[in-house]
Amino acid sequence: MTTSPLPHVVIVGGGFAGLSAAHALRSAPVRITMVDRRNHHLFQPLLYQVATAALTPADIAYPIRAVLRKQTNARTILARVTGIDLAQRTVRLLDGELHYDHLLLATGATHSYFGKDEWETWAPGLKTIEDALEVRRRVLSAFEAAERLTDPAELPAVLTFVVVGAGPTGVELAGALSEIGRLTVAKDFRSFDPRTLRVVLVEGAKRVLPPYTERLSAAAQRQLERLGVEVRCGAHVTRIDQTGVWIGDEHIRARTVLWAAGVAASPLGAMLGVPLDRAGRVLVEPDLGVPGHANVFVAGDLMHVEQDGAVVPGVAPAAIQAGRLAGRNIAARIAGKPTRPFRYRDKGSLATIGSAKAVGKLGRLELTGFVAWWIWWVVHIAYLIGFRNRISVMIGWAWQYFAFSRGARLITGRTWEPARDAPKR
Amino acid sequence: MTTSPLPHVVIVGGGFAGLSAAHALRSAPVRITMVDRRNHHLFQPLLYQVATAALTPADIAYPIRAVLRKQTNARTILARVTGIDLAQRTVRLLDGELHYDHLLLATGATHSYFGKDEWETWAPGLKTIEDALEVRRRVLSAFEAAERLTDPAELPAVLTFVVVGAGPTGVELAGALSEIGRLTVAKDFRSFDPRTLRVVLVEGAKRVLPPYTERLSAAAQRQLERLGVEVRCGAHVTRIDQTGVWIGDEHIRARTVLWAAGVAASPLGAMLGVPLDRAGRVLVEPDLGVPGHANVFVAGDLMHVEQDGAVVPGVAPAAIQAGRLAGRNIAARIAGKPTRPFRYRDKGSLATIGSAKAVGKLGRLELTGFVAWWIWWVVHIAYLIGFRNRISVMIGWAWQYFAFSRGARLITGRTWEPARDAPKR
Repeated sequence: MTTSPLPHVVIVGGGFAGLSAAHALRSAPVRITMVDRRNHHLFQPLLYQVATAALTPADIAYPIRAVLRKQTNARTILARVTGIDLAQRTVRLLDGELHYDHLLLATGATHSYFGKDEWETWAPGLKTIEDALEVRRRVLSAFEAAERLTDPAELPAVLTFVVVGAGPTGVELAGALSEIGRLTVAKDFRSFDPRTLRVVLVEGAKRVLPPYTERLSAAAQRQLERLGVEVRCGAHVTRIDQTGVWIGDEHIRARTVLWAAGVAASPLGAMLGVPLDRAGRVLVEPDLGVPGHANVFVAGDLMHVEQDGAVVPGVAPAAIQAGRLAGRNIAARIAGKPTRPFRYRDKGSLATIGSAKAVGKLGRLELTGFVAWWIWWVVHIAYLIGFRNRISVMIGWAWQYFAFSRGARLITGRTWEPARDAPKR
Repeated sequence: MTTSPLPHVVIVGGGFAGLSAAHALRSAPVRITMVDRRNHHLFQPLLYQVATAALTPADIAYPIRAVLRKQTNARTILARVTGIDLAQRTVRLLDGELHYDHLLLATGATHSYFGKDEWETWAPGLKTIEDALEVRRRVLSAFEAAERLTDPAELPAVLTFVVVGAGPTGVELAGALSEIGRLTVAKDFRSFDPRTLRVVLVEGAKRVLPPYTERLSAAAQRQLERLGVEVRCGAHVTRIDQTGVWIGDEHIRARTVLWAAGVAASPLGAMLGVPLDRAGRVLVEPDLGVPGHANVFVAGDLMHVEQDGAVVPGVAPAAIQAGRLAGRNIAARIAGKPTRPFRYRDKGSLATIGSAKAVGKLGRLELTGFVAWWIWWVVHIAYLIGFRNRISVMIGWAWQYFAFSRGARLITGRTWEPARDAPKR
């Protein structure tokens, strides 16, 4: 490899940031190696729809090497990174190593249990396809267990679903869970009425969707309550076990608890040996470079960048913009030109609540209800990579919307075991 | 339950036979309980398409309770059967039991390794969604491994795919594998040419598709060879391990071996304590009843019925017809009327070879090539349960056919480990 005259750019992570950087370097005089431990790019904003059986994994995931098929200066390898040696300019893999001239680390973030990792067994989070299928399994299995209950006193706990965290994912999950019981499976059971399910959304902050304005938070809460979701703000979870959730001393008995709180950066950030923030994100220079290493950049959810007094949020548009700039800055370094600082342009954000409501802002405009939902729909379809995925997702949604049905109600994995007995993976 | 005046019919197995029986009993004065250890009916004839990334699991699986939603005399439970007590008229479950007045056992068959169960680690079969995802993972992982090979001498073995068994599933798998390498991923890799893959189809009998006529077998072999598949008939596998497959003393080095041979009936047949055939199928009476037990029936791949000197084959149309008759015969018993004997009406059969060829017979008519493929397509779409599935499958196929692409190329589960190191499940 060192015999080739072109500089070697290694990009770790095929998410929004990594793919945007590769795209930005498509005409640059470089050899790119994209490394990911998964073979697919995942459209994470729609992962909750896989967890709630509306979409299927292939709808929101696309092979990274298919995305880069026509970019002849890029190759893709499936490998797990085990270490980074900045002095030797080497990325160590589980089964080999890569020497780089320029490195972009874009491995994102996962959920965090605030040091209570034992909660994961009872309250799975939602970051990978496998996570989503596990959540789907637990949700659908709860209804199956309810149908077979011999002791009616158990029914309320079996039909209680607690979602911890009322950010966009938690709000979307809670709304979808309520609709599953009240619409999708309403007539599928004989020994209980699924419409009697209880969905509790627990949030430590004073209101749902804390990054939004108070007005939008209030609108979101109203829409959730109209769907039958019980919203508990300012409520801190103190314990989770097989019987349910504790908020302070109050015990909410629930068979199914889902985790949508907390953010922890990918552990690869710590491999750089440079300063991190409390969530493990890398404190990058304004140009997204790693301090003291002009040939190493970080983009996406793994970066810590402040702008106008706040940290740039871990959302897809920020990752896309940062990835693109990191790619351009690598090209600038190679060309001997100055790099440019990152400036996040917030075009707006939207969160759906159930199958036909949403809240959001576009610039200064605040939107609620059906109009917000419709814009959310168009935006997400537009971003989805791959024509087939777009068509398939549209059909899935149309089917869900008009028929209150969900096309992916499969329990896979350990299907006949009670969910509670099975620790995750 | 015993207080209700209506007889209780327990159907074990929500495949083609079990669902057809439930449907046949929709207006009968009975209470039906459908028991399955999976929550979904699986359209097994298309399972190889999930294994080869053309379709996604939700396309070919549908919740059993959604199929029976409107049939108010039926309830569905997700449970694992652990025993059957004919004297006590009880089906034992892992977590409970069911008393029945009439029982239909329709739990089908799986693949058999002819007593060499240790081969399963190296050569997974194809009966469940999980099997199909495991095959998909191994196939896609082989190409990923080829991209990262450091020793070019390893490449031929990594790019060799052996399919054992040239029945419909084996023929379909082999054709699809060849197309994946020669069309789908042809331009996705940088360090090798996927079109150099080798697909070997091994069959112990003298020709492929042994149940078909010699003319159709010859046509199928020609079509396979045109797709680049190496067909080895009269070849008996003597050993399978991590290095590949032995045919007698000949060693075919192959990273990926898939099993499409052998049939073993569901172990539930043996729980009846009645005579079985060599494959474990229940030797039923002409009316599909279990000898000596007028209230117990067997239908589908688990039944052994002879007709015109041959055993009725384990195909979907036979299961549908047998399930329907078993349901009607249960209703006849309850009404005190005579039961009717089973008569399989063979309307024809078709096997696809790649994305636009097939062979088959419809009555006396023998078909090959594009016409056979087109009929295959229409028939399979027509049988697929669930409107959404039909649309989604049509799109998946159209996309594959016109774009040589495959929409479900996801490696899930243990993605970054070499497939060989990972024993199945």
